[in-house]
Amino acid sequence: MSGSGEFELIASLAGRLDPAVDGLGIGDDAAYWSATPGSLLVTTTDMLVEGVHFRLDWTSPRDLGWKALAVNLSDLAAMGATPGRALVSVALLPGQAAIVQEMYEGLSELCRLTGTRVVGGDTVRTSGPLVVNVALIGEAAPGRLLRRDGAVPGDLLAVTGSVGASAAGLALLLEQDPERMARPEAAPLLAAHHRPSPRLAAGRVLASMGVRCAIDISDGVASEAWHLARASGVAISLDTDRIPLDAGAVALFGPAGARKMAVSGGEDYELLFAVPEARLAEVEAALAEHGGATVVGRVTEKRTGGHVEMLEAGRAVEPGRLGYVAF
Amino acid sequence: MSGSGEFELIASLAGRLDPAVDGLGIGDDAAYWSATPGSLLVTTTDMLVEGVHFRLDWTSPRDLGWKALAVNLSDLAAMGATPGRALVSVALLPGQAAIVQEMYEGLSELCRLTGTRVVGGDTVRTSGPLVVNVALIGEAAPGRLLRRDGAVPGDLLAVTGSVGASAAGLALLLEQDPERMARPEAAPLLAAHHRPSPRLAAGRVLASMGVRCAIDISDGVASEAWHLARASGVAISLDTDRIPLDAGAVALFGPAGARKMAVSGGEDYELLFAVPEARLAEVEAALAEHGGATVVGRVTEKRTGGHVEMLEAGRAVEPGRLGYVAF
Repeated sequence: MSGSGEFELIASLAGRLDPAVDGLGIGDDAAYWSATPGSLLVTTTDMLVEGVHFRLDWTSPRDLGWKALAVNLSDLAAMGATPGRALVSVALLPGQAAIVQEMYEGLSELCRLTGTRVVGGDTVRTSGPLVVNVALIGEAAPGRLLRRDGAVPGDLLAVTGSVGASAAGLALLLEQDPERMARPEAAPLLAAHHRPSPRLAAGRVLASMGVRCAIDISDGVASEAWHLARASGVAISLDTDRIPLDAGAVALFGPAGARKMAVSGGEDYELLFAVPEARLAEVEAALAEHGGATVVGRVTEKRTGGHVEMLEAGRAVEPGRLGYVAF
Repeated sequence: MSGSGEFELIASLAGRLDPAVDGLGIGDDAAYWSATPGSLLVTTTDMLVEGVHFRLDWTSPRDLGWKALAVNLSDLAAMGATPGRALVSVALLPGQAAIVQEMYEGLSELCRLTGTRVVGGDTVRTSGPLVVNVALIGEAAPGRLLRRDGAVPGDLLAVTGSVGASAAGLALLLEQDPERMARPEAAPLLAAHHRPSPRLAAGRVLASMGVRCAIDISDGVASEAWHLARASGVAISLDTDRIPLDAGAVALFGPAGARKMAVSGGEDYELLFAVPEARLAEVEAALAEHGGATVVGRVTEKRTGGHVEMLEAGRAVEPGRLGYVAF
């Protein structure tokens, strides 16, 4: 498929993103490269739709490009994989060329920081909302993959860094309260929402240490714990009071508000992982320079279909499936 | 990113497309597999937008699924590559679940015929037109790639099969003439438009024989000749009278109408390739069971920036860039 005029211009911009690319880039029918011998290929894709996953009055095109790649990189991080080649498809209205060009710049920025290369894509017109699809291909060492189904009874459940900042940033955008927006803590929260940093290094450290089970936190800690429990066929006890809360989120929304954001909130892109208790100290030490790690629960027993028991102030609360649907 | 309800249902349908998949499928953060040792990875992506690339009153969801994959497979065919793993992203309106389910069925049909496996995807909601993005990862043997920039003076230019059927099918849809639509030739033309067959076998034969230059015909023979000329830095003489026209297109639209459709028409997904004159007979013989091959021109000289001279009834006509923008 090819377009014409404006669309070819955009396609050529995309082709110049990475002049050192060792594939054919957008100029041929397909891009190619040699995979590292013996490695596993790891792929993921995410589609972002204007009005569903982002709003152009809240998100700059540059941040949109960053985030469209970041959410995919986070999936690789959660597998312990390394980026990566990206294919970027965009559906845009006539007249949106400048928006898409800026979007590519933000995407390119994160490419440079993470060693990702855009090797192809498609640029087409639409009559509706802007749509961005990124497909990402990375590599991992065989036998060193982080999977959702690797949790076993006796494992502790831990989270990298801190959570709640992205949901707090979204809350700031949703409420549009000028006072809270003027607080010094606001900018980092908005940045956490717009420019999440996928935990690629932490994922690689975990994988290289032989940790077997992780997931990235795209929908709140409770929802991700539920995914791990279901995939692994285990019951998980999650102590919400131990979840490491983002300090800015606590400052602006209080401890209870920040905890709710961390538990059922949003797109922090930290990693939630399971680790045998005996290996915790060693793993914590290795993650010290990658955001650290905090124990938030444990795998209590095998349970077909999975189960999550959520503790709040020491007592069990109904976990349900506290997922989060982007506005 | 994850949705909820209807969208998770769809995602789970996609996950069941290929239960034998040797990756993790949609159930984990990313899918993985081992590439064939020593092979090149070849990737491509195409985005189809309702109202731009297809209309749901003209195209059945099943055919849409087939075509969304076929256009990507054709890119692999044009490289001499083998499928493949696919990532399928869909943006849909609430209430379109049945449409998307049927779409997956058509896609799955072509997967089975071509050895392609869906290993991941994303299903999200939109407020606008249906959007389908397929990203495809295949493999090729190093040193056996078909590229756009491989044509050299002295090469003949040939095309597989016959062309014009898909554009004729689109013309039938556009004119909605009940008489012409009732002709027995109409159904195969519509099928050619809705269910193109990527020339994967022909591409592999060409690559294995050491042919270096090919492109798939997604925008008419003239436009593709122009792409080859530009990428290879050569002048091409294209004899439009020699283009093998689809018999049904000739029957319904006459030789001149069919020729115009073949030259500047549409999505035939045949291969246009360059081959040294001395090797023509051998290549023709090898392609006999894959639609055959017909010489349509020759590479006359080196020319920076590329050039196409188009002959019609023996005299040169202005080629321009007779590309085709989907309705």
